[in-house]
Amino acid sequence: MAESPRSIARLSLYRRLPAELQAEDPEADSVYSHELARRAGVSPAQVRRDIMALGYSGTPNTGYQVEALTASIAAHIDPATPQQLALVGVGNLGTALLQYFRGRQSKLHMAATFDTDPEKVGRTIAGCRCHPVSAIGEVVPAEGITVGIITVPAPHAQETADRLVQAGVGGLLNFAPLHLRVPDQVYVEHMDIAIRLETVAFFALRGRQSPRG
Amino acid sequence: MAESPRSIARLSLYRRLPAELQAEDPEADSVYSHELARRAGVSPAQVRRDIMALGYSGTPNTGYQVEALTASIAAHIDPATPQQLALVGVGNLGTALLQYFRGRQSKLHMAATFDTDPEKVGRTIAGCRCHPVSAIGEVVPAEGITVGIITVPAPHAQETADRLVQAGVGGLLNFAPLHLRVPDQVYVEHMDIAIRLETVAFFALRGRQSPRG
Repeated sequence: MAESPRSIARLSLYRRLPAELQAEDPEADSVYSHELARRAGVSPAQVRRDIMALGYSGTPNTGYQVEALTASIAAHIDPATPQQLALVGVGNLGTALLQYFRGRQSKLHMAATFDTDPEKVGRTIAGCRCHPVSAIGEVVPAEGITVGIITVPAPHAQETADRLVQAGVGGLLNFAPLHLRVPDQVYVEHMDIAIRLETVAFFALRGRQSPRG
Repeated sequence: MAESPRSIARLSLYRRLPAELQAEDPEADSVYSHELARRAGVSPAQVRRDIMALGYSGTPNTGYQVEALTASIAAHIDPATPQQLALVGVGNLGTALLQYFRGRQSKLHMAATFDTDPEKVGRTIAGCRCHPVSAIGEVVPAEGITVGIITVPAPHAQETADRLVQAGVGGLLNFAPLHLRVPDQVYVEHMDIAIRLETVAFFALRGRQSPRG
C-alpha cells in the first residue's frame, strides 16, 4: 500500500476531482484515469497505480465509478472517527483559515483555538472557542486533539510547536515562515507562503513550465 | 546553475535562516552548512551543493559569511527591479494575505487587487486598490504585473487563471482547491490547504516521520 505523503495528497485530490467533472456534467457517474490525470497534473499511469494500490480498479470501457472510487479513497485516508484539530494564532491568517474550514464536510473537526491576546481569549471566533496558549497542555488531551495548525508569528512558532507536541499532537500544519524542529514521530507540513511566492516570482520571469506530479 | 523549483525554494529559505540564528546570537556573522541544513531540514551536502552553484563558498573554519551569502542568493533569485503582483479574490484569505505581505521588505510589490464584489471594488484594502475582475486585462499590463495570486472560490479559479494568463502574467500562486490548466510557459504553485491538512491528519495518527528535503 502506497503511503508516502505525496500518494496521500494525490488520493485526496482524486477524491475531489469527480465533483469538478460533475459540475460540468451532473450525470457523469464515472471518470477515466486520463481525466483524473489531466486535472491532477500527473500521468494516467500514476493515477492507475495509486488507485490500484487501494484494491480498487476501473474498467477500460467506463473508467472508475465515482461512488465506488470515492468510497475506496475515504476508506483508506479518512480516520474511522472524526479527528480533532486545534489552531494556534487567531490573527488574520488564522481567522481566514477558521472561516475556510468552518462548515466544510469533513472528518476533520476544529475543536479549539489558542491565542495570547486577552481580547480573543474566552471568545468564540468563527464558531470555535479561543483558549489561552498557556492552556494547550490541558485542552489538547482533554479534547483528543491530534493535529495542530500553527499561524503564530515566526518568533513564537517553535515554542508553539513544542507545546503542541508535548500535549500529544502527532501532526502539524505550519504557516509560520520557519522550519520547525520536532521529534521523528511527529509529521509536519510547511506551508511557507513567502517562499512559494518567491519561487513563483522567479519562474514567472523565465517562462519555465510548472513541475508535474 | 541549479534552477529547479526546489532549489530556488531552498535558496529562499537559506537566505532567511541566518536571521533566525542572529535572533539567538546577535553577533553571529557566519553560519555553517550543518546549521543551515538542520534548520532547513535538508542534508549539509545539499546545502553546500546549492550554495556552491551560486559561485559562493564558505570556509571549513568559519562557514559562510552571512552578508556575502545573503548577497549571493539575492543576486541569483531576486529580480533586478521590483516585481509587481496582483491578488484576485479579496475575501478572508485574500485579505489575510494582503496584510501578511504589507510592509514586508521585498522585491515583490502588491500592485493591484481584483474582486467582483461592488462593496470592495474601488476601495483600498490593506493598502492596495481593488479593481473589478473585468479590468484584469487592462490593469495587469498597465501595471507590469508578472505574478497573480488566486484566492477566489474554486468554481471561479480556472477562469481567473485564464484572464491573468491572457493579460500576461507568467506565474500563479493558487490557493483555490483546484488544479489549474495553464500554458506550458506559465509557472504555477498550488497551495492546496485542504489537501495538505488531510495529509497531516493521515500521518498524525500513524506516527510517521515528515519527509526531508
